[in-house]
Amino acid sequence: MRLVRFGERGQEKPGLIDKDNVLRDLSGEIDDLRGEHLSRAGLARIRALDPKSLPKADPSHRLGVPVAGITNFLAIGRNYAEHAAETGSDVPTEPLIFNKAISSLNGPHDDIGIPKGATAVDWEVELAIVIGERALNVSEGEALDFVAGFALCNDVSEREWQKNRGGQWTKGKSAPTFGPLGPWLVTADEIGDVQALDLWLDHNGERRQTGSTRDMIFGVAKLVSYISDFMALQPGDVITTGTPPGVGAGMKPPQYLKGGDRLALGGTRLGEQRARVLGGEG
Amino acid sequence: MRLVRFGERGQEKPGLIDKDNVLRDLSGEIDDLRGEHLSRAGLARIRALDPKSLPKADPSHRLGVPVAGITNFLAIGRNYAEHAAETGSDVPTEPLIFNKAISSLNGPHDDIGIPKGATAVDWEVELAIVIGERALNVSEGEALDFVAGFALCNDVSEREWQKNRGGQWTKGKSAPTFGPLGPWLVTADEIGDVQALDLWLDHNGERRQTGSTRDMIFGVAKLVSYISDFMALQPGDVITTGTPPGVGAGMKPPQYLKGGDRLALGGTRLGEQRARVLGGEG
Repeated sequence: MRLVRFGERGQEKPGLIDKDNVLRDLSGEIDDLRGEHLSRAGLARIRALDPKSLPKADPSHRLGVPVAGITNFLAIGRNYAEHAAETGSDVPTEPLIFNKAISSLNGPHDDIGIPKGATAVDWEVELAIVIGERALNVSEGEALDFVAGFALCNDVSEREWQKNRGGQWTKGKSAPTFGPLGPWLVTADEIGDVQALDLWLDHNGERRQTGSTRDMIFGVAKLVSYISDFMALQPGDVITTGTPPGVGAGMKPPQYLKGGDRLALGGTRLGEQRARVLGGEG
Repeated sequence: MRLVRFGERGQEKPGLIDKDNVLRDLSGEIDDLRGEHLSRAGLARIRALDPKSLPKADPSHRLGVPVAGITNFLAIGRNYAEHAAETGSDVPTEPLIFNKAISSLNGPHDDIGIPKGATAVDWEVELAIVIGERALNVSEGEALDFVAGFALCNDVSEREWQKNRGGQWTKGKSAPTFGPLGPWLVTADEIGDVQALDLWLDHNGERRQTGSTRDMIFGVAKLVSYISDFMALQPGDVITTGTPPGVGAGMKPPQYLKGGDRLALGGTRLGEQRARVLGGEG
């Protein structure tokens, strides 16, 4: 299934996109798409519905973040060897985890804003994991049972704030609009081999990033298992898994986002995001 | 006002502790204490009630985390010069921000668990800020207008996971039960001078930490203003502001928590926490 939330920001309704690519309204069945709806039982309830029995919704609706009530928006740093190299960093020996603020979440096609004072806003196309069941101390072998599905994420980053403002990366990863997620959550049963998905990103019509999740240093099952040794992952929590090479910081000279820019990004079975960049005040 | 949430985990009701230290039930007036209840308007509505008109609640109720629906649990590192020194670190030139998982939140008197595999679990008594209004790019002069109140926090930390597992501190700060908060949220109008509050912590009856918020390197107004330049703080968000000297890692030899230990901690107008430590499997 491809699950979405559609409507204006803060008033999104749950929906799904059926096999004929028709947007269907789930709000007669569930009040929203939160963690509780993404458990094995919750997804089974949605799966038992006949999509054709659900009302069609206007396809021109804005799409929102496909999960509501996210309590943890984690991200993995340097999870592709070529990306680590382009940033002048060593390949990590264990997953590097950092946090994006929940308030950075953004709809997949919403504008991305340059924050006040920002000078080095960069793009990062990524595969994001959405947790379906509470996961604490789960093994790599069982980790995928705790995953509801996947979504496309742009881990928008302010490089100066990330690197030169006191150590921890969260400062450069958390501004409003820095976390576009979606267009949809594709459930785990429909993703195929999650370690064989293509990812791409275009900046103003030029291909900047091309990658495949087969090149991830730490795969999805490893990441879920690893993180679950340090904290309890909750239903609805999101882990975006790191970016392949081709970010602006790695270009010579570095190239960063400015007002008026256009980003398009996508991934196999993950859909596409198309966003405009709005200029900042700084 | 001193606002609380009382009842079993996941089923807490909102309440307040009146001037005679009687627990009063607010659940006839508001359904919970979330960010939306902590705005200036939300707090004014609660303040307009006559506490004596509210039903008394059984004082033996468990107290929970005094705010529901927290979306960001931030913490400040090395914000007291003597604590930076005891950890062998330099005093930071700007605030060091890291994240604790929302799933680490714990009631003020709930047991603290040693996670599986943990070897270096430490205590940190702290003053926590609770945000009342969305704060983005707010000046230091106006920052306190965005604060609903304050609470006592124990920023429980696994030192090995924090320092030696790949760079970002969140790994050592996020295990279940690592974020005891409360007993109450004391509103900003009743805290007095927030930069003149005593803090203390006893480990198995021995005083380990003694400090005052007057020794914070970056004060409350500066922290809220500073963080709001990097991300939008949401109503209900929590920023715990760093610990004074006296942590276990700074002792010679270092002393860490083990099953059966008792912690007691408190602060001026912030109340006290009394927690038992449960042994881990690791």
